[in-house]
Amino acid sequence: MTAASEVLERLRAALGDRVDTTPAALAAARADKSGHVASGLPIAVVHARSVEDVQQTLRIATATGTPVVPRGAATGLAGGANAGRGEIALSVRLMDRILEVRPDDLIAVVEPGILNAELNAALAPHGLWWAPDPASRAISTVGGNIATGAGGLLCAKYGVVRDAVLGVDIVLADGRLLRLGHRTVKGVTGLDLTSLVIGSEGTLGVIVGATLKLRRLVPGEVCTIAATFPDVRAAAQASAAVTASGVQPAIMELMDASSLAAAHALLALAPPTAGASQLTIQTDGPAAAAEADAVAAVLRAAGGAVALSRDRDEGERLLAIRRSMHPAMERLGTALIEDVSVPRSALPAMFDEIARVEREHGVTIPTVAHAGDGNLHPNFVFHAEPDEFGVVEAPPHIWAAADDLFRAALRLGGTLTGEHGVGVLKRRWLADELGADQWELQRQITRVFDPQGILNPGKVFAS
Amino acid sequence: MTAASEVLERLRAALGDRVDTTPAALAAARADKSGHVASGLPIAVVHARSVEDVQQTLRIATATGTPVVPRGAATGLAGGANAGRGEIALSVRLMDRILEVRPDDLIAVVEPGILNAELNAALAPHGLWWAPDPASRAISTVGGNIATGAGGLLCAKYGVVRDAVLGVDIVLADGRLLRLGHRTVKGVTGLDLTSLVIGSEGTLGVIVGATLKLRRLVPGEVCTIAATFPDVRAAAQASAAVTASGVQPAIMELMDASSLAAAHALLALAPPTAGASQLTIQTDGPAAAAEADAVAAVLRAAGGAVALSRDRDEGERLLAIRRSMHPAMERLGTALIEDVSVPRSALPAMFDEIARVEREHGVTIPTVAHAGDGNLHPNFVFHAEPDEFGVVEAPPHIWAAADDLFRAALRLGGTLTGEHGVGVLKRRWLADELGADQWELQRQITRVFDPQGILNPGKVFAS
Repeated sequence: MTAASEVLERLRAALGDRVDTTPAALAAARADKSGHVASGLPIAVVHARSVEDVQQTLRIATATGTPVVPRGAATGLAGGANAGRGEIALSVRLMDRILEVRPDDLIAVVEPGILNAELNAALAPHGLWWAPDPASRAISTVGGNIATGAGGLLCAKYGVVRDAVLGVDIVLADGRLLRLGHRTVKGVTGLDLTSLVIGSEGTLGVIVGATLKLRRLVPGEVCTIAATFPDVRAAAQASAAVTASGVQPAIMELMDASSLAAAHALLALAPPTAGASQLTIQTDGPAAAAEADAVAAVLRAAGGAVALSRDRDEGERLLAIRRSMHPAMERLGTALIEDVSVPRSALPAMFDEIARVEREHGVTIPTVAHAGDGNLHPNFVFHAEPDEFGVVEAPPHIWAAADDLFRAALRLGGTLTGEHGVGVLKRRWLADELGADQWELQRQITRVFDPQGILNPGKVFAS
Repeated sequence: MTAASEVLERLRAALGDRVDTTPAALAAARADKSGHVASGLPIAVVHARSVEDVQQTLRIATATGTPVVPRGAATGLAGGANAGRGEIALSVRLMDRILEVRPDDLIAVVEPGILNAELNAALAPHGLWWAPDPASRAISTVGGNIATGAGGLLCAKYGVVRDAVLGVDIVLADGRLLRLGHRTVKGVTGLDLTSLVIGSEGTLGVIVGATLKLRRLVPGEVCTIAATFPDVRAAAQASAAVTASGVQPAIMELMDASSLAAAHALLALAPPTAGASQLTIQTDGPAAAAEADAVAAVLRAAGGAVALSRDRDEGERLLAIRRSMHPAMERLGTALIEDVSVPRSALPAMFDEIARVEREHGVTIPTVAHAGDGNLHPNFVFHAEPDEFGVVEAPPHIWAAADDLFRAALRLGGTLTGEHGVGVLKRRWLADELGADQWELQRQITRVFDPQGILNPGKVFAS
C-alpha cells in the first residue's frame, strides 16, 4: 500500500484535470441510490474520458496496490459503486459516445457511460431499441446496466441484459484491455467471458465498451389493462393464471395494497379500496388486441375488476401509477428496496411470506412485483436520522426483517437478487445461496482477473 | 499418473458393470461426427447412470491423475468428445430422465443424456418446447447441446442455448457437485457460472443436470417461402434485405449452387438451374401470413423467383431440401463441416471469400448458411482412404483451405465457430481470435475448476 498522497500525485501527473478531489465529488462518490454509504472519503474521483484514461488509472492502482471502485451514474441499489477511504472512484460516466449503429446487423457499439434512455432515443429514428428497461433507465448507464445484469419491466417477453449483449471490452486490474465476445448473433469460440462480466459488479474489470444486440421497434398497437383485486394473493394468483394461459404480456406489474395506496396519494388520485391490489398489464405486437382480450377474460375469471385501453396515452397514464412507486415510497419515509426473485408459481406464497414478515417484525413492506417474471421489490420503510452527508442507513431491525424475507425467497426456490445485484448490501447472504464451494470458486475466478484484489474489494464476495 | 490397469481396477471396483472395455465401445469412444479420431484407445468407457456414478469416476480420475472425456451422444463436429489413449470416456447418455416439467414456471429440469428431440416430444403435450434446434436434434443430447453452446435454424428469432438455460449442475474434476444458476427468469446473485459452463466443451466440469427455460408452442400458421436466385451473392443480398426490412423470420436458410445441386440429386428432384442458389424462409406466429407476404415482396424485388406456401406439409417438403444437406454431402465424398459466423451484413462478402478460397485452393466448398443469423457451414469435400476404424481424416490441403477461410471470417468481424465449438479441430486458431491475453485468462479459469487439468485435456485450449 502506497500513501494516499502519493497515489494522488501519480494520478494527477498522468490524468491532470480528470482527477477530481473537490469535497462534493468525494462525498458523492461514497453513495449510490441504495441508502448505503462507504466509510470515509475516497482518495479521488477520476472522470475517465477514454479507454486510455481507464488504463492509466488501473496501472497506477496496480503499481500502488490501491483499490478501484468503477462507477457510472451511481443509480445502483446495492452499494456496489460506493467508494470509501483509501479507494479511487473511477467514473466512466463521461465516456458516453455511441460509436456505431448497424441497423442491418441489429447491433450498436457504445461506450459505457451513455444513459439507457439516451441510447434508446438515438436508436428510435433507426426503428431500433435496446430492450433492457430498468425502472432507472432515464438515469442509469448502459455500462451500469451491464455491470449489474439489470432487468426491468419487459423482461419476461424481451429478456434481460444477459440476452442483449454480444460483447464487452474491459480493462483488467493491471491495465490491459480485453475485447470479449462477438459482433455475431452466434459465437461459441472459447469460454463465454462476456456473460461472466455481465452482473459481475466491477469485480472482474472495468467495462469500457459494449456491443449490444438490438431489436426492431415492435409494430402494432399497445393495449393496457388495469385489474383490481380484493387482496394481493388474488392478484398474484391472477398473474399466475395469465402466465399459465399462454399469452405473453410485454409488461405485467403487480402492486400490493400499501404501494397502491401510496402511489395514489402521491398522484392525488382517489384512494383505492382498502386492501385492494392491482395488476397492470400491457400487450404489444401484431396480436396485441387479441391478447389483451384474452388477458382480460383470464383476469375477470380470477375475480378482477378490469379496465382495458387501446390508447397508448391512456396506457401510459395507467402505468404511471406503477412508475411512481419510488417517489411514493420516499413520502412514507426511507425505503430499503429489495429485489428477490422466485419461480412465477411461487408468487402467491412469497406474498404470504411478506405478510408474515410484516407481522412478525412489525414493519411495513409495500411491495411491487414484475409478476411476469417473478421478481419482487419489497420496500422496507423506516424512519431514521440522516448522517452528515444526508444519507439514511437502514437500522438493524429492518435488516433482521430483510434477512427473514431473503431466506423465505431461497426456500421457495428463489434468488436473493433478480436485477439489482449483491453489492455491499447482500454480500452476507451470498454464500447461503451459492453454497460454500461455489462461493469459493467464484472468488477464485475473480482472482484470475484481478490477482491483487484491487477491483471493487469488499463488494459481492467480502463477508 | 497411475498405470491404466490400476485405474481400470478402481473403476470396476467402484462402478461394476457401468465400466465398459469391449473393443467396440473403446473404438467408438475415439470418434464423434467430425471425422476426427483420437489417438489410441481409451482405458474404459464409463456409462454413468447417476450423479453419484459421475462423482465416483471423477474422484478416481483425480486420485490417479487420469484424464476424463465427457460424452453424450457423440454427435459433435469438432472432436470435443473424442477419447484416446490413457483417458476415461465418461458417457452420461444413459442419464436421460426428465425430472420435472413446470408449465406454470415455463421450466424443465432434465438429466443431460436425453435427446433434444425426445425432450421436445415430451414437452409438446404440455404445449411447450425447448427452442434450441441444432440440425442434429434427433440424435444429439441436451447436455451436449449445452456443452457446445449449440445453435440451430431458429436462432435469429428464438435464441441459442445460452438464451434457454437457467441453471446447470456440474461435477467438478475432484468429484464435488455444484448447482449453478436459478429456477427464476431473473437472477444476478454472484457470477453467471451457468453461462460460463455453456459452450465450455467439458473443460470446466461434467454437466449432470440442467434447468431449462421453455417456451410455449407458437400458435398460428407456418408459412414457407422458397426463392431461387441466379447466384449465391444475390441470394445473400436478398437475405440481408429481408433482415433489413424488419420482418423476423423463424427460419431463413441459404443454400449455394453446389449444395442445392447435391441435395436435389440425393432427393431425385429435377436438377436446379446451373449456378442457382436458394433461400428457404419460414414465418410463424400470429402475423405469419402478413410477414410471409412482406418477405415474398422483398425477395421478388431482390430478383428472386418466389414460391409461397401456407401448408405445413408443403413447407416441410420445401425445407426437406435443406435438411438433406448432410446426407447429400456424404454422396460427394467426405466433408469437413465448418461453422464460421459473420455479422449478417457481411454474408455476401463471406460468400465472395468462399469462392476465392475454392478458386485458390482448388477445392469444392458447398455451403449452407443460417442466413438469419450470419452462421455459415462451408463443407470442404475431399476423398481419402478410411483408417482401420473406417474413419477418414481431412488431408493437409483441406486444412490449408479451411485456415484461409477462418482468417477471412475473422477479418469480416466474424468468429471461428458459431455453434459447433472448438474441440480439437479449431484449437489452433483459438488464440488468433481471442488474442494471447484472453486465451491465457480463459486457460487460467479452467484451472480454477480443474487444477490438475484432467477434464478434457487437449480440447479447446491445447495448442
